[in-house]
Amino acid sequence: MGANLTVAVDAMSGDKGTGVIVDAVRQVLNARPDANLLLVGNPDEIQRHIGDQPLPAGRADIVEATEVVTMEDSVAVALRNKKQSSMRIAIDQVKSGRAAACVSSGNTSALMAISKFVLKTVPGIDRPAICTTIPALDGHTHMLDLGANVDCSADHLFQFAAMGSILAQAIDSADQPTVGLLNIGSEDIKGNLQVKEAAELLTNSSLNYIGFVEGNEIFTDRADIVVCDGFVGNVSLKTSEGVARMVSHYLKEEFLRNPVNKLVGLLAKPILRSFGNRIDPRRYNGASLLGLKGVVVKSHGSADAIAFANAINIALLEIDNDVPSMIAERMSHSLSSIA
Amino acid sequence: MGANLTVAVDAMSGDKGTGVIVDAVRQVLNARPDANLLLVGNPDEIQRHIGDQPLPAGRADIVEATEVVTMEDSVAVALRNKKQSSMRIAIDQVKSGRAAACVSSGNTSALMAISKFVLKTVPGIDRPAICTTIPALDGHTHMLDLGANVDCSADHLFQFAAMGSILAQAIDSADQPTVGLLNIGSEDIKGNLQVKEAAELLTNSSLNYIGFVEGNEIFTDRADIVVCDGFVGNVSLKTSEGVARMVSHYLKEEFLRNPVNKLVGLLAKPILRSFGNRIDPRRYNGASLLGLKGVVVKSHGSADAIAFANAINIALLEIDNDVPSMIAERMSHSLSSIA
Repeated sequence: MGANLTVAVDAMSGDKGTGVIVDAVRQVLNARPDANLLLVGNPDEIQRHIGDQPLPAGRADIVEATEVVTMEDSVAVALRNKKQSSMRIAIDQVKSGRAAACVSSGNTSALMAISKFVLKTVPGIDRPAICTTIPALDGHTHMLDLGANVDCSADHLFQFAAMGSILAQAIDSADQPTVGLLNIGSEDIKGNLQVKEAAELLTNSSLNYIGFVEGNEIFTDRADIVVCDGFVGNVSLKTSEGVARMVSHYLKEEFLRNPVNKLVGLLAKPILRSFGNRIDPRRYNGASLLGLKGVVVKSHGSADAIAFANAINIALLEIDNDVPSMIAERMSHSLSSIA
Repeated sequence: MGANLTVAVDAMSGDKGTGVIVDAVRQVLNARPDANLLLVGNPDEIQRHIGDQPLPAGRADIVEATEVVTMEDSVAVALRNKKQSSMRIAIDQVKSGRAAACVSSGNTSALMAISKFVLKTVPGIDRPAICTTIPALDGHTHMLDLGANVDCSADHLFQFAAMGSILAQAIDSADQPTVGLLNIGSEDIKGNLQVKEAAELLTNSSLNYIGFVEGNEIFTDRADIVVCDGFVGNVSLKTSEGVARMVSHYLKEEFLRNPVNKLVGLLAKPILRSFGNRIDPRRYNGASLLGLKGVVVKSHGSADAIAFANAINIALLEIDNDVPSMIAERMSHSLSSIA
């Protein structure tokens, strides 16, 4: 197995257990004949889920791990006391070069801290950021940071914009993706100091900066990448999840209100399903930890096999396009242009 | 006309013109026989829309204004150069005691600045905040600040919590409404410095503080009031608008995809309408500017008559419950407990 298209998969973290991970691995191995996967976890448990349908020979190795980082573990505990965890060992595979990427459904803070500690950040990047894809009318938007960095300077926001651009190029094969800065109004006078300063840095950069965008514009095609600090990004992402859940709940409630509605609901089922598919969060599963010397993708804790497979596919796209090196190259330009 | 239940209505601001305001006034006068309204604007234009169906005698006076604050006007221009604007004169009615509240669909920044300048803030309140009602499962949530204050200290967040509690008591007749602080995680270690400090202030206060809430929890019944700084609140509110618009768009598109879907859509129409009514933004129109020596309510610029009437009703509820005095009383307690 070459390191090139190999992804180390944390098979012990996440709410749904090892079975879902094994199913996702099987899906990806079938869809991507060029990819190899390492399953990091309890070998017996993994074998039990593989069962009597072996994975393609030579393309899926098992790497033993004896511990799990739980959702309750503090970053300090995860980092210092769980060196035999599936998360740590999956990241170690990237460090040693055996894999080029790691995918985990575990504790985000721990994943970020261990990745930073083991892999280190790319020169020119102060803080890695978390970037995810969000459904938008006629496409999707990449948004970062989503919670790794609570207080951000203008420089940090600029670095996020640069990293997001490179990720969008990799995922969308876009040439000059547009970058918007999340703000509370389109007028220049609005916004906080960091955002105003970041706008200046972006205007004077080679990035395709299009100006301020407001919260509602995340879901339009106004910008390919929306940049904000981690506090704002996390609130915005969770707000959108909350609204989507409330809307689905109300819709379901109305179609179940009485026998007539239920009958119409039965007729409308394929329409509602096709509607649901378009905003299916599983299609968007997989948040990239950007700015590290290696590809790390965070899957949602409750991801099923389809969702987890999507996260692995994002990792493969990042490897295909060598996102970490592209970020390093971009930052070396920025650094030399400042010097 | 007594000042007690009199609301001054800015009849010139907003995208929809004076006709919509006159219709809203008519609705409110019919529904609330104890309320009086002042229509501030161009008397000919107002009369033209009243037409041959006069408003109830003695309950609706016209006050002349000769200028309009536009959406493009800077705060400085609105404040210094537009003293004959409908917005300014409507607020002046509150200052003079002729009205107890003002409702306007105009420029939010101008409305806040003029209100602060003319009415002044309640002692103990550093900055007025904007609070609106947001639909939530089994009810609604009050959220503030929504954009008046970009950088907030812990003290400011505490003041927002106190003001929001009083507003929720007024609007919902709730006894001890619950207060949550918007944060990016429920663990104590997460969040920025201001939020952590505000949590301490709230824990030690007599408010019914329930802890941190995340973005998705705004739309549940976890807290009656959600407190955050204006940058985060504005992004969150606009994010929710964007998601709701995208979801409606997709839903409509699926029901119009082909003739069969259109037919099912026809059958489902009453169900979809009743669904739409539950998240109808018109039901939630009317954001309260809290912390001023007088009631000021901002209506959405594109409000129709139903929506604008809702904003007037919120103003009436705030007068009914004397929200400004309640805030002043609450803050005097806080001040004396600190002293």
